[in-house]
Amino acid sequence: MTSLTPPAAILRDLIRCPSVTPEEGGALTYLQTRLDALGFRTVRKTFSAPGTPDVENLYARLGEAAPNLCFAGHTDVVPVGDETAWSHGPFGGDVSDGIMFGRGAVDMKGGIACFLAAVEAHLAAGKPIAGSISLLITGDEEGPAINGTKAILDWLVQQGEGIEACIVGEPTNANHLGDTIKIGRRGSVSGTITVEGVQGHAAYPHLADNPVRGMTMLIDGLLWEPFDEGTDAFQPTNLEVTSVDVGNPSFNVIAARATATFNVRFNDTWTADTIKQEIEQRLARAAREERLRKPEKGGRRPPVSYSIAYTERPSHVFLTRDDALIAALSSSVEAVTGQAPALTTGGGTSDARFIKDVCPVVEFGLVGQTMHQVDEHVPLADLDQLTAVYERFLEDYLGRAT
Amino acid sequence: MTSLTPPAAILRDLIRCPSVTPEEGGALTYLQTRLDALGFRTVRKTFSAPGTPDVENLYARLGEAAPNLCFAGHTDVVPVGDETAWSHGPFGGDVSDGIMFGRGAVDMKGGIACFLAAVEAHLAAGKPIAGSISLLITGDEEGPAINGTKAILDWLVQQGEGIEACIVGEPTNANHLGDTIKIGRRGSVSGTITVEGVQGHAAYPHLADNPVRGMTMLIDGLLWEPFDEGTDAFQPTNLEVTSVDVGNPSFNVIAARATATFNVRFNDTWTADTIKQEIEQRLARAAREERLRKPEKGGRRPPVSYSIAYTERPSHVFLTRDDALIAALSSSVEAVTGQAPALTTGGGTSDARFIKDVCPVVEFGLVGQTMHQVDEHVPLADLDQLTAVYERFLEDYLGRAT
Repeated sequence: MTSLTPPAAILRDLIRCPSVTPEEGGALTYLQTRLDALGFRTVRKTFSAPGTPDVENLYARLGEAAPNLCFAGHTDVVPVGDETAWSHGPFGGDVSDGIMFGRGAVDMKGGIACFLAAVEAHLAAGKPIAGSISLLITGDEEGPAINGTKAILDWLVQQGEGIEACIVGEPTNANHLGDTIKIGRRGSVSGTITVEGVQGHAAYPHLADNPVRGMTMLIDGLLWEPFDEGTDAFQPTNLEVTSVDVGNPSFNVIAARATATFNVRFNDTWTADTIKQEIEQRLARAAREERLRKPEKGGRRPPVSYSIAYTERPSHVFLTRDDALIAALSSSVEAVTGQAPALTTGGGTSDARFIKDVCPVVEFGLVGQTMHQVDEHVPLADLDQLTAVYERFLEDYLGRAT
Repeated sequence: MTSLTPPAAILRDLIRCPSVTPEEGGALTYLQTRLDALGFRTVRKTFSAPGTPDVENLYARLGEAAPNLCFAGHTDVVPVGDETAWSHGPFGGDVSDGIMFGRGAVDMKGGIACFLAAVEAHLAAGKPIAGSISLLITGDEEGPAINGTKAILDWLVQQGEGIEACIVGEPTNANHLGDTIKIGRRGSVSGTITVEGVQGHAAYPHLADNPVRGMTMLIDGLLWEPFDEGTDAFQPTNLEVTSVDVGNPSFNVIAARATATFNVRFNDTWTADTIKQEIEQRLARAAREERLRKPEKGGRRPPVSYSIAYTERPSHVFLTRDDALIAALSSSVEAVTGQAPALTTGGGTSDARFIKDVCPVVEFGLVGQTMHQVDEHVPLADLDQLTAVYERFLEDYLGRAT
């Protein structure tokens, strides 16, 4: 067996910790031990909330001075899915042809391994730290995300802990290491629409009110008119109707109720409140639509009877405005990879949605293509390159602050 | 306990036979015994088909001459539903304030009881039968209807049995006994539409193809343009989308597939084949619709990918053209009830859809309001009045033929 470079060795150790949310799996203990050895002050915090599993978290800091540059990540991983479909064990960290396989390889034990290796190299080289380095590692990013980053940030703020800047190690790159830094995220609002009709026999539709008709009108009202054309930093707002369900097994029965779920990812044209208002206005308008209504003898039909319920706390849109932070990360990426990364705000949410309330936050990690998939894997070369980017960024950002 | 009139006594006996499809429950044996005593030639036939329960049926005939006037009905009943919600036992035949309660009271043990009572009165009075009287009673009308009327009609045709006219005793009246005779039925076609999309993350819709979008377009294509304005004998063709289902529990996932089921009740503007063609043309047109498509960079999106599967043998539309048969029934109703019944073709299907291939068929029975409901019931006065209508019809129709 050929020897592994430091980030690859750390990653293999982490992959071998079976830390599917909410299991700690030994991953946090492994990191804590290693950070203790480097002189970090470490603390483990377990948070609880009704209806969710308890989750462990780790915060570690080296130095007391400001600025405190925090690396945020998660050791929990999504389930392996069909384990028999994996070509290598999902908790093995096997290497084949220069590629390491395992759940979490890119999302995001790999990112953590690279940052830890970068810190170790930085310290081993005796380079200065003009400020502090910290790590905020949660075990609840892939789960409900209630007992994780949000909870530990609240606790840190209560303790008076200062964090001046944060880098999240999620897999941000689309195709090649270095192609994408994320400097913001769209907001996200989800909800359920319920249309109440009147049950009846399909042969006597005048005695019933088919909720599918009303639901189709409401969905039409939501889907087809663009919300905006996008902004300088953000792609256009987009709404997806994620499910429509009636559950009626009988062809000769008109059902009493139909439901639809939706998710909207909105840009900085909107807030969570204004996008909800827009959705509600569209629904109200569609419910009164007469043009599309089935012709009825003797006059107008009443509006569609519906209700809307939002199902999660919204995720708020944000855009990082700290040009110095962005420039330090961007120039580090370019110096190592030879390409200037795109600064984007697309894709799904991350724990950056919580961190942005505490300090400026940027995101850069591995290539995301295999995340959440069978045979999740990472090229060893990517691990070395990401480690080099993080080393350069530590030098640049913590040098800049002196 | 006050004594019951003949039709009420027969109905109570029939209600006490628990003949929920496919159970015979003693109901056919009861009828057979009573018809044997009147001199009818009776035969019981049990039919079987793959995937369906075996079902018993009864055919009885008095006389050999033509015309053979056949009364068609069913002793099977739908399940009682929530038995605790009934105010009287569903298989008790209790009478309260002149109303008899029980499953099948109107659909349609009541109709059978009235016809049997009418035949008994006709024979007891020594009135002539210029032809034959027969009864075709199935135990599979509320079920798959495969081992019932259709099967026994096929068997009778094979035997060379002639049937010249038929009256079905289903509950045809909407509000008052005598308000409605049915002289035809719309056809019925049911199907399932499946839209295949591409699964993905709700935050990356450009990598997915949400099947809800395509399904909404297809449903729009089916729902809003009238198929026709109705004909002299029939109400307009109507299509109901009876279910839409995606079954996606995740707000951040775009599902791979959506299904919708539909049922169309069509008039004599169409045949089962031409209405299917119309539906398929509408779907094909909607699938190519660009006006409603989400704007896409770089050109047109491919048409919606969908398939359609019809789920039952269609029920064909028919209209009875035998003016003499209709006139005899209509004048009998008017003579007894004092009102001229409306001649309609609305409502659901009945076994008349099978009988119309053998002979002219009309339908007249009790008031349908409580059919299939908890506390199904019939006023005793309605039973007496319907018996009088059937007596008058026997005299009129079998007198006419001499």
